Amino acid sequence: MSISGKGLLLVVSGPAGSGKGTVLKCLMEKNDDFVYSVSATTRAPRPGEVNGVNYHYISTEEFEERIKNGGMLEYTRYCENYYGTPKKEAEEVLHSGKNLILEIEVEGAENVKRLYPDAVLIMLLPPSFSVQESRLRGRGTESEEVILKRLERTREELKRLGSYDYVVYNRDGGAEMTADDIISIVRAEKLRLLRSPDAAKKYFE
Amino acid sequence: MSISGKGLLLVVSGPAGSGKGTVLKCLMEKNDDFVYSVSATTRAPRPGEVNGVNYHYISTEEFEERIKNGGMLEYTRYCENYYGTPKKEAEEVLHSGKNLILEIEVEGAENVKRLYPDAVLIMLLPPSFSVQESRLRGRGTESEEVILKRLERTREELKRLGSYDYVVYNRDGGAEMTADDIISIVRAEKLRLLRSPDAAKKYFE
Repeated sequence: MSISGKGLLLVVSGPAGSGKGTVLKCLMEKNDDFVYSVSATTRAPRPGEVNGVNYHYISTEEFEERIKNGGMLEYTRYCENYYGTPKKEAEEVLHSGKNLILEIEVEGAENVKRLYPDAVLIMLLPPSFSVQESRLRGRGTESEEVILKRLERTREELKRLGSYDYVVYNRDGGAEMTADDIISIVRAEKLRLLRSPDAAKKYFE
Repeated sequence: MSISGKGLLLVVSGPAGSGKGTVLKCLMEKNDDFVYSVSATTRAPRPGEVNGVNYHYISTEEFEERIKNGGMLEYTRYCENYYGTPKKEAEEVLHSGKNLILEIEVEGAENVKRLYPDAVLIMLLPPSFSVQESRLRGRGTESEEVILKRLERTREELKRLGSYDYVVYNRDGGAEMTADDIISIVRAEKLRLLRSPDAAKKYFE
C-alpha cells in the first residue's frame, strides 16, 4: 500500500530525554513543509490539554468504528486506551505535498513501515545512554523509580533500532542542528531513485 | 570490500549539458569536506592541461603495473588509453574523513558500486531531454554530428539509471541549489542506520 502525493510520511521516535519535543518544535518553526500529525485518543484530556492540539479526544465507540472503516492509518492500545493516527487528515497533508510527522513509538513505527514501505523512520537519540541518564535526573521532576523504568524501556526499544532508516543524535543545545539533519534526510529521500523508478522514461517525455 | 574511514565515496555522473562541472566547482567552493579525485591517464596532456590538476599523466607501463598491484580503485580503457582512480590517494582522503568525488561514467560507476557497495552514486541531469538539447546547441561550439552523438549517448546511458542511488536535476542557474542537494544527500547518508549497524551497542558503551 502506498499513499500517493509528493509529501513524505515521516515517523519520528525517541526515548525520554532525547529532546524530541524541542527538535520537532524547532523543525516546524524553521520549515513550513512539515506538518505534525495530531493523534486521536480515547483517554480523557489532562488539565491544560486542548482538543485538536494535544490530541483529538474521541469516544471508544467512535474510535472502534473508525478502525472498522479503515479510518486509522495506524493505532495502538495502551493502558486501556486507544491512540491512533486519523487517516483522512494524513492523506490530505501528503496530497498537498507537505511532509507529515508521526511522533510514535517503536511498535507503531514498525506497523507504519509494514503498511507504508515508503515511510521514513527516524530514531532520535541523546548522544549516549549516560547523557540520557543525566538529562532525566537533571529534570528533577521524576522519581528514581520512574527514571529507571524509562531507562529500562530505552534498552528494550533499542533492540528494535534495526527497523529504522536513520538514527539522529540530538546533542545538548543542538536542537537546530538536529532539525537540519531531519530536513536533509527529507531532501535526500525525495531525490532517491527508488522513489521515482520511471525517472528515465519521464526525462525523455 | 569496503574502504574504512568516515568519508563517503561519492560517484557523480552526468551527460553533456548537465552542468556537472559548474555544480562540482560550486560544491567544492561551498564546502571543504569534499575532495575531487584527480584521475590518472595514459593519454598525452592536451594544450593547457596541467599534470596533477586535470589528470595525473603516467605511462602505459606504469598504469599496467599499478593495475597489477591493486593500485587502481577502478579503471577503464577508452580509445587506446587507460583512465583510472589512484587508490592510495582515494584512501587517504576517505581516512581523513573527507568525502571523495569520482566524476566517472555509467560503466565506471557500476564497477565502483560492485567493489564498494558503500559508495553513493548520483546521476546529475538537466531538467529534461529537451533542455539538454537546447543547452548543447546553445553552446554553438560543437557540430550537429557531435551534438547528436552526445544525445544518443545519453539515451544509452540512462538505460542504466537504475544503477544509481540518487538523481539530481540541475535547473538553469540552479548550480548552488544542486550543490545543496548533494550536500543534503551526504548528510543524510551518514545518518543511515545501514552505515552504523552497531549503533545500538555503541549507544550503551
